[in-house]
Amino acid sequence: MVGKKWLKLVKRLHQKKYRNEYQLFFVEGKKGIQELIDAHLQLEKLFVYLEFQDSFQDVPVEVIAQKELRFISALKNPNGLLGVFQVPQPEKIENRGWVLVLDDIRDPGNLGTIIRLCDWFGITDLVCSEATVDVYNPKVIQATMGSIARVNVVYTSLPDFLKNTELPIYGGYMDGVTIYDEELPDVGVLVMGNEANGISPDLNDLIKNRITIPRYGQSTAESLNVAMAAGILLNEIRRK
Amino acid sequence: MVGKKWLKLVKRLHQKKYRNEYQLFFVEGKKGIQELIDAHLQLEKLFVYLEFQDSFQDVPVEVIAQKELRFISALKNPNGLLGVFQVPQPEKIENRGWVLVLDDIRDPGNLGTIIRLCDWFGITDLVCSEATVDVYNPKVIQATMGSIARVNVVYTSLPDFLKNTELPIYGGYMDGVTIYDEELPDVGVLVMGNEANGISPDLNDLIKNRITIPRYGQSTAESLNVAMAAGILLNEIRRK
Repeated sequence: MVGKKWLKLVKRLHQKKYRNEYQLFFVEGKKGIQELIDAHLQLEKLFVYLEFQDSFQDVPVEVIAQKELRFISALKNPNGLLGVFQVPQPEKIENRGWVLVLDDIRDPGNLGTIIRLCDWFGITDLVCSEATVDVYNPKVIQATMGSIARVNVVYTSLPDFLKNTELPIYGGYMDGVTIYDEELPDVGVLVMGNEANGISPDLNDLIKNRITIPRYGQSTAESLNVAMAAGILLNEIRRK
Repeated sequence: MVGKKWLKLVKRLHQKKYRNEYQLFFVEGKKGIQELIDAHLQLEKLFVYLEFQDSFQDVPVEVIAQKELRFISALKNPNGLLGVFQVPQPEKIENRGWVLVLDDIRDPGNLGTIIRLCDWFGITDLVCSEATVDVYNPKVIQATMGSIARVNVVYTSLPDFLKNTELPIYGGYMDGVTIYDEELPDVGVLVMGNEANGISPDLNDLIKNRITIPRYGQSTAESLNVAMAAGILLNEIRRK
């Protein structure tokens, strides 16, 4: 039986204020947990169903009952494994290669998908505005499928970051230059905006290059989701 | 108060067998309903909260109570508008332009996202294997955000379809030729496979051109979700 103190603590980690206070977060599922262990994140506690107690080598586990895991899990159907990790210190953005910048992305699934995209396209630095959804939100962590271990995520003031970078700055807009006509450089910054409102007007002056994915359908066609647009633009950056 | 017969019928339309039997489906939300009306789909019944009874011009509505809508809605938080439409007859695939083919896509969100992509990139014909999730599944309809009105979706045997097309056939694989090196033609067929298993082996001989989105991250990077891969490949098709 798991101590009440731990059950209460993990339950609290559903909320950002407690993740910040304790500097802890959790991930569920064997693959996600193993990837974070392999990436040398500090594991604080690993709860597993009895049947999974030999799933990890050289890692102490604590057996948890179904009822207990259901209480602390963020999943509708808990999968029997939950690891609590220390929040790693974000590394300094080196401004090497391409940097992806997110301006107030609010949907956890979108942020998770974008982190997977960074992993696929070899983008190691992801800069988020302070109002972007927390990367250690359980829904984000679940959607990253382990990619979080390979992408450095930093929260900061975007005006400050963009003013201080020497890289050329691109932004995804509905009314920019078509990406097919744009010669993209080897290094740069790509800014993607909020799901409903796009990029904040106060960043407009800092973004010299407005780029767009051309629409081929009727003008009534639905706009692309921000994660989809990010995927297409990162592919364009890499294809050159 | 809505008649019991209608409540029971809409509740049944959550299930594919009843959608097939009645040839009816439903969509929720003002925008989605309006788009289907504008596309001349046959509206059978439109339920709205009292406050929305003047939301549609020249369309008879029936006022529904919150409790009743909660009973028949597919949404956790119903938005107050639900329209029941006749399933339109699929049009014959003309084999003009590019055709997208889906081999056993199971996730409703993925199919909905792919239909939005078709709409954006001007792909009007979408061919699905019989085992692909039903396009009139409420979760698919919700994820299309109205794009369903502009994309012709046909369910058929993929071996038969691919044997009978004269268009060049491309398939998205993990181990194909990188798309950056491929000269894509003006017209063709693009096949995308199941979320877990990719394209069925029995289609391999019919797909002459295996294409791949190159990975730039470490080899441990998570693979791209099928809808994301479809978006990137459709962008490649249009960029040429």
